[in-house]
Amino acid sequence: MRNAYFDQLDSIVDELVDMTHVVKVAVSLATQALLTADAEIAEKVISDDAAIDAARERVEERSFELLALQQPVASDLRMLVAALRMVADLERMGDLSVHVAKVARLRVPQVAVPAEIVPTIERMATVAEKMVDTVAGIIAERDVEGARQLEEDDEEMDQLRRSSFRLMLDDSWPHGVEPAVDIALLGRYYERIADHAVSLARRVVYLVTGETVTTVDHL
Amino acid sequence: MRNAYFDQLDSIVDELVDMTHVVKVAVSLATQALLTADAEIAEKVISDDAAIDAARERVEERSFELLALQQPVASDLRMLVAALRMVADLERMGDLSVHVAKVARLRVPQVAVPAEIVPTIERMATVAEKMVDTVAGIIAERDVEGARQLEEDDEEMDQLRRSSFRLMLDDSWPHGVEPAVDIALLGRYYERIADHAVSLARRVVYLVTGETVTTVDHL
Repeated sequence: MRNAYFDQLDSIVDELVDMTHVVKVAVSLATQALLTADAEIAEKVISDDAAIDAARERVEERSFELLALQQPVASDLRMLVAALRMVADLERMGDLSVHVAKVARLRVPQVAVPAEIVPTIERMATVAEKMVDTVAGIIAERDVEGARQLEEDDEEMDQLRRSSFRLMLDDSWPHGVEPAVDIALLGRYYERIADHAVSLARRVVYLVTGETVTTVDHL
Repeated sequence: MRNAYFDQLDSIVDELVDMTHVVKVAVSLATQALLTADAEIAEKVISDDAAIDAARERVEERSFELLALQQPVASDLRMLVAALRMVADLERMGDLSVHVAKVARLRVPQVAVPAEIVPTIERMATVAEKMVDTVAGIIAERDVEGARQLEEDDEEMDQLRRSSFRLMLDDSWPHGVEPAVDIALLGRYYERIADHAVSLARRVVYLVTGETVTTVDHL
């Protein structure tokens, strides 16, 4: 028979999975705000981030309670410490979506992204959302195989970022400094969202296999 | 009489303080590499980051050992979980110094930063280093007062970043896109180093006072 302790462990995992869904919506809406110069959607992303912060607090409180009251050992201890880190990754992904939304808001009524960069940013957003989806599955199923897919997606993200730099730094770039600065920072935000997705997945791999986690942050 | 358990807790705090010193050197050398276009110093920052990663692993292993074997409760439990987070902040500060060094290396033999932006970047680096120093003191002494100073320094960092944007986005900016993109990203890196310093300090405040920690990330 299941007891309250295992139910609480499960509820933490459920909350982490729920958070990935909320983060995916944040990434998607932030990108929509960015590419359509929609201030209302941008504001929504910014204000909805409070829900992600609140979810982080709930997971932290529950994890602490279990650590303090149940004194878990071995794999449960590892899981709870991993949960505390994963929730920090998810919160950062929410913050980074807010940053994208703030760039959008800053340039309204103009679209911050020049037309020839739109496909690159769109693809970055698609890859980021796909990675968040994959992470949700990895957390829910403890599916270590999915983590490999994420590394590939992360590689595509890096290539997209390099291609945005090539366009901006080409002599034929007609848009001047401001859009270039926006795109450099936007690219950094999407790339960091991807990095946090990889980091989340690696924490699950560590839980399942004991294999060491390393931090990701390419430039 | 002190026992091995308290010695191990102390050794974790000592290691965190040592890491802040190593991070400060990384920030300082990365800035030197940046402002003098010194590829050798840049390489040193990049390769020395392995020592910060290794320190992170040591702190993580020791914290896990204590969590698993000693099953600490209340304040010791909070301290160990805080240590796991603080070490993640410190590792990121090292990574961000590496990013600064990589921008430096990318532009050698040229200096990535145009002359009129040098004072701003220099000041950003000085503020960042000062903040890392303050954090070392806060961790070592559990001095909650020092945390207030950090919030002020962080505000100065934000102002420096805004001032760099004003210079780059002015019509009279003569340097084109590439240095602007470099400075936008460099500003982001120094700002994130400052944010992590504030985050570290808030974790100590939380340990000492029980006051809630919130994440910092301005744009």
